[in-house]
Amino acid sequence: MITHGQKVDSFRSKSRKGIVRGVRIIHGNRATVDLIAQSQMDFIYLDQQHGTITITDIFEITALLAPYDIVVLVRTADNGRKSIGLALDAGAHGILAPEIQTVTEAKEIVASLRFPPSGSRSWGSFAAGKSDYASFGGFVNPICWALIESKSALSEVEKIAQVEGIDGIYIGRFDLALSMSVSPEDIESSKTLDAEIRNILKQVQAAGLPTGTSGDFSKLTDQGFRILTVRSELELLSVGLKKYLTD
Amino acid sequence: MITHGQKVDSFRSKSRKGIVRGVRIIHGNRATVDLIAQSQMDFIYLDQQHGTITITDIFEITALLAPYDIVVLVRTADNGRKSIGLALDAGAHGILAPEIQTVTEAKEIVASLRFPPSGSRSWGSFAAGKSDYASFGGFVNPICWALIESKSALSEVEKIAQVEGIDGIYIGRFDLALSMSVSPEDIESSKTLDAEIRNILKQVQAAGLPTGTSGDFSKLTDQGFRILTVRSELELLSVGLKKYLTD
Amino acid sequence: MITHGQKVDSFRSKSRKGIVRGVRIIHGNRATVDLIAQSQMDFIYLDQQHGTITITDIFEITALLAPYDIVVLVRTADNGRKSIGLALDAGAHGILAPEIQTVTEAKEIVASLRFPPSGSRSWGSFAAGKSDYASFGGFVNPICWALIESKSALSEVEKIAQVEGIDGIYIGRFDLALSMSVSPEDIESSKTLDAEIRNILKQVQAAGLPTGTSGDFSKLTDQGFRILTVRSELELLSVGLKKYLTD
Amino acid sequence: MITHGQKVDSFRSKSRKGIVRGVRIIHGNRATVDLIAQSQMDFIYLDQQHGTITITDIFEITALLAPYDIVVLVRTADNGRKSIGLALDAGAHGILAPEIQTVTEAKEIVASLRFPPSGSRSWGSFAAGKSDYASFGGFVNPICWALIESKSALSEVEKIAQVEGIDGIYIGRFDLALSMSVSPEDIESSKTLDAEIRNILKQVQAAGLPTGTSGDFSKLTDQGFRILTVRSELELLSVGLKKYLTD
Amino acid sequence: MITHGQKVDSFRSKSRKGIVRGVRIIHGNRATVDLIAQSQMDFIYLDQQHGTITITDIFEITALLAPYDIVVLVRTADNGRKSIGLALDAGAHGILAPEIQTVTEAKEIVASLRFPPSGSRSWGSFAAGKSDYASFGGFVNPICWALIESKSALSEVEKIAQVEGIDGIYIGRFDLALSMSVSPEDIESSKTLDAEIRNILKQVQAAGLPTGTSGDFSKLTDQGFRILTVRSELELLSVGLKKYLTD
Amino acid sequence: MITHGQKVDSFRSKSRKGIVRGVRIIHGNRATVDLIAQSQMDFIYLDQQHGTITITDIFEITALLAPYDIVVLVRTADNGRKSIGLALDAGAHGILAPEIQTVTEAKEIVASLRFPPSGSRSWGSFAAGKSDYASFGGFVNPICWALIESKSALSEVEKIAQVEGIDGIYIGRFDLALSMSVSPEDIESSKTLDAEIRNILKQVQAAGLPTGTSGDFSKLTDQGFRILTVRSELELLSVGLKKYLTD
Repeated sequence: MITHGQKVDSFRSKSRKGIVRGVRIIHGNRATVDLIAQSQMDFIYLDQQHGTITITDIFEITALLAPYDIVVLVRTADNGRKSIGLALDAGAHGILAPEIQTVTEAKEIVASLRFPPSGSRSWGSFAAGKSDYASFGGFVNPICWALIESKSALSEVEKIAQVEGIDGIYIGRFDLALSMSVSPEDIESSKTLDAEIRNILKQVQAAGLPTGTSGDFSKLTDQGFRILTVRSELELLSVGLKKYLTD
Repeated sequence: MITHGQKVDSFRSKSRKGIVRGVRIIHGNRATVDLIAQSQMDFIYLDQQHGTITITDIFEITALLAPYDIVVLVRTADNGRKSIGLALDAGAHGILAPEIQTVTEAKEIVASLRFPPSGSRSWGSFAAGKSDYASFGGFVNPICWALIESKSALSEVEKIAQVEGIDGIYIGRFDLALSMSVSPEDIESSKTLDAEIRNILKQVQAAGLPTGTSGDFSKLTDQGFRILTVRSELELLSVGLKKYLTD
Repeated sequence: MITHGQKVDSFRSKSRKGIVRGVRIIHGNRATVDLIAQSQMDFIYLDQQHGTITITDIFEITALLAPYDIVVLVRTADNGRKSIGLALDAGAHGILAPEIQTVTEAKEIVASLRFPPSGSRSWGSFAAGKSDYASFGGFVNPICWALIESKSALSEVEKIAQVEGIDGIYIGRFDLALSMSVSPEDIESSKTLDAEIRNILKQVQAAGLPTGTSGDFSKLTDQGFRILTVRSELELLSVGLKKYLTD
Repeated sequence: MITHGQKVDSFRSKSRKGIVRGVRIIHGNRATVDLIAQSQMDFIYLDQQHGTITITDIFEITALLAPYDIVVLVRTADNGRKSIGLALDAGAHGILAPEIQTVTEAKEIVASLRFPPSGSRSWGSFAAGKSDYASFGGFVNPICWALIESKSALSEVEKIAQVEGIDGIYIGRFDLALSMSVSPEDIESSKTLDAEIRNILKQVQAAGLPTGTSGDFSKLTDQGFRILTVRSELELLSVGLKKYLTD
Repeated sequence: MITHGQKVDSFRSKSRKGIVRGVRIIHGNRATVDLIAQSQMDFIYLDQQHGTITITDIFEITALLAPYDIVVLVRTADNGRKSIGLALDAGAHGILAPEIQTVTEAKEIVASLRFPPSGSRSWGSFAAGKSDYASFGGFVNPICWALIESKSALSEVEKIAQVEGIDGIYIGRFDLALSMSVSPEDIESSKTLDAEIRNILKQVQAAGLPTGTSGDFSKLTDQGFRILTVRSELELLSVGLKKYLTD
Repeated sequence: MITHGQKVDSFRSKSRKGIVRGVRIIHGNRATVDLIAQSQMDFIYLDQQHGTITITDIFEITALLAPYDIVVLVRTADNGRKSIGLALDAGAHGILAPEIQTVTEAKEIVASLRFPPSGSRSWGSFAAGKSDYASFGGFVNPICWALIESKSALSEVEKIAQVEGIDGIYIGRFDLALSMSVSPEDIESSKTLDAEIRNILKQVQAAGLPTGTSGDFSKLTDQGFRILTVRSELELLSVGLKKYLTD
């Protein structure tokens, strides 16, 4: 069985060179994530910022998905090192850090993911006697994607993407739009928003990193995104319902 | 808000005249059934024979879906009046009775759904002080679909469909095939199986009732089925995954 | 702390001489039963026949209520020795056996509560290393109340009450009424029903046992009942709501 | 079925003109809140500051109570915009903000309830494909009650009540007493405390808003309170137990 | 990853030739079984006869332990084909059938484990779209151990062990003792009991099958047992507590 | 039954004079803590910093363990007064405060444990009508152990141990080692680390308080530790597994 560290390395490598595809998980139902793990998705991210995910969910889902070639990330409720540390203790392969504004923040978050002396994470083995758990934190640099979701962060994106330890930039398109006074109905058509997104894609690409967001995969790929996400597991259900009801 | 009895009456009426569409539920995740309830599906059935559904699931899901125009049926683990009574106590609008073989069984099941003197159900209000709960059982005849899923039941279908209180016949195609020594790979192509299914459809139609099974809705409709079911909520997820991954 | 066996003995003794008061529990919420345990109620009964109670509920609630002077009974879903044995394994102090019709049934149920050679219960310690658990089943005769809830059982009540091991007779008034073709609205006013209930009370009293049912405690006491039960924990909430909303 | 926004508007309107009555919920048992929703209570508030309420509780309870004419508020654990945003994402109609001390705090909390550009809330749809969920946050100003519970906040009450977006002032009488060195036993009799409470009532009334606290409804009404709350769902049970045991 | 069928085959083979070691699980805590799966234990058995195990537990634990070289058996609450079928649907690799008395019973149980035409199991795929789940039942003969736990079964052991499909005999020593009027205190010292156990071991060995029970592994091995079981997961905790407290 | 306050007093007294032994709990399984409570362990600590413990866990476990002579402490996720207050509201007898660096922090934490005017805790009775709950917070000073787990805190230990309200110093050996650039493999052999630990033990002893950490009890006792902790409940399982598998 592939180890925790090998999974992280292999996923990081794939995301640097090509495209990774995943699903945002709001509710953490075991059968749902089990099914997704058997598909060709590369990752799921468990959402604590806008979802119901608990530490027990992270612990049990990470264990459940261990045999599959899929990575489990967590969007932590906040960027405090306590929240980040707990998600990692429970078995997450990395995090999506919400609402990053500055290089300083990005650096602090990267530090939260690592043990001293290179970082500030506190040690806390979750499963005594299980050598994999005991060791993974000490030798693995977890995945770290920074969410850019406000106007004020735009001028910092280029530098944030260059922070050592940042593995990708993820655009929170809805929040970004709202912060630019683009109303929800105009998100698809707004040229100002579109221009800013193109700009981010260019800057992140220059730093050798992938940019991500949620939406239709083919459309996102055309725009240059390389982290492609399904809006949530409920979106998958909706697609299924639509197919059956209109067939 | 529509009452329990009105829902049952309206659903029964619709199923007698036209087509009803639904989803088999194995796991009972609250967010999943909530989403389905907002679609145009007419029913879900909670599966206790081949699923993880508990009495608490029936109780909470029935309450959760109360405001929506959707009916909650239960496939009980067995046809004992205890199992049937408990599902109804918890709020189900009716049942799918598995593995019906004879007219006698069908009549006993119908009796299990009704209070004395017309039936054998035991009274047990689940929610004191809630007048709807207290009364629905006494005045409503719950929906009752009989599952035909073995060769030996084929000769009885015509008579079972005529039992007062039976609202539809549901074909368990997989079990039926196995009992006829049709192997899983041949289910779609077997002419013997197909002939028997056509025969059931004709007999049930003659009794003025709908026949049901799971599969693609348009194909089932062409064959004459009027109770159309998605194989499970996980099938809906699979459709969604496929769409995203091949798009 | 009082042992399991002492609790059973002391409760049996009290119920033989005087009045015991309790609450039917449908949902098994921990905070609810914890609060009831601190009141002067003598017992709760966890309802598996018309409720959502699981084996885990019985196990955890029995443990939670261990320090309090309150007995935990279970109304099993059926009278099979498997169902009865499991409830006892999980820690119940006794059972309410639903729908007793004959002396033979009553004797079989009593046997289900006891280990060989005097009974038919299967051994299965739930908590290794906990001497109390390991031993309580072997030396204690659990409480056994027989539910009389149909017309056809009325002629047997006198003999059932005399079966060794039966500790009380509990009237399921609603089901009894239905089986006598007394409609729900007439339960309070029906003279036929009232006469039968008086008759039961007299016969059970003659056998030296208490008779029970649910309702207003003062009214029940006046009628001669000595096992007084609140219809459910939700009835307690309803009383509270009414007091606050009409005050 | 009434929409999320209509419920908020109608509740706000009622609370401005008259009296609203509700129950504090500590444990979030589904059957309990379902029963309360069927009474004439106008709201429940789910307590995260002094209770066990999780995000899943808020999500499921809000969905469960959707058809009823009752509003679901949340007392968040703290006043951070993350905590507030998550409660709203999960479906809450508004919040009780604990331990408000200053006008600045009150303004920040109101901002946390609203999306940019008028506020600072982050977008996060909880249920893809459900148009109601997707839209309610954008167009509704959630209910916001400020808790006053310390001596140092008393001089600010008048100004806090005038902050745009504050819908009511809620007195944490116990904490207020402790901060004034009034011991628990003297809360009912303390004239100093009583004078301060009268003062708050007068100032809030002048701002056109209701004042709330928990206690006996008729007594609170006499004092001028217009948000009346039952101390907790367990208090309702206690009233029921007392009635049965002393009857 | 090893498939379901390969696991069953490999485990059956090992149990025929040598010794298999396992733990009885009463409570199904995820972290507990995860830890056991990482040890050298060959199986766990989830106890529904004397434990709190639900269908959801079987489903989730089987999925969780999929990557490990460990088999998950279930002691079903009873030997009905419904109970057995549901455990297998949920992912169990086989069962322990309680209280076997006759060859007829043993044959019926073996039939319950297999699909028609060779058996009587009903088809019910638990996880649509997951080819492993969809197929494992059809091609695998699950493990079947018969429990001998009463005096009256002793004369049948030899023949039961020869029933095609029976993979081992498991002695319920405690129940066997009680049925022979050996009191709990005398189980270790009773020569009558010991003689009967030796007799079983000899007869089962002659049939080429292993015999099992719970107890100290080295002692059991000396006696000729080849299925060695820890009494329960709580016994493991007790050993740990004892070591720490007496060290 | 011993009251909450008596338990705290008696435990504090024992820990001042002698040795207290306990277990760190990561997962909060009810049967596990129930078993530990019946052993001679003096305390458990529920871990929210590096564990899955929720407020419901604290509430239910504290109630479950009430009759036993065992204290329930909580290692809160952080040292904020909100987190501390909630753990106490739920029934904890005290806390382990993580990552203490300064005397100021220690004093703030002690204040968080007490009500005004001596402290800053907010009142919030969890269980209306239960006099024990209602009162314990007001009159009891909960146990408070400060965790020392970084190099920078070493110079402050002596003064922190003298802060009124601090009942013990707990060494997070792993984190302390990492902060001193001692790698995990060298923790046992590092002389620098050993010297610092000896120094802490001496300073804390001088303040009349016990020092604690996790490890083998006899070895810890020899070193002078008086708060002895098992690394986690999973460690107990591991010991049990090892004994059975190597026996």
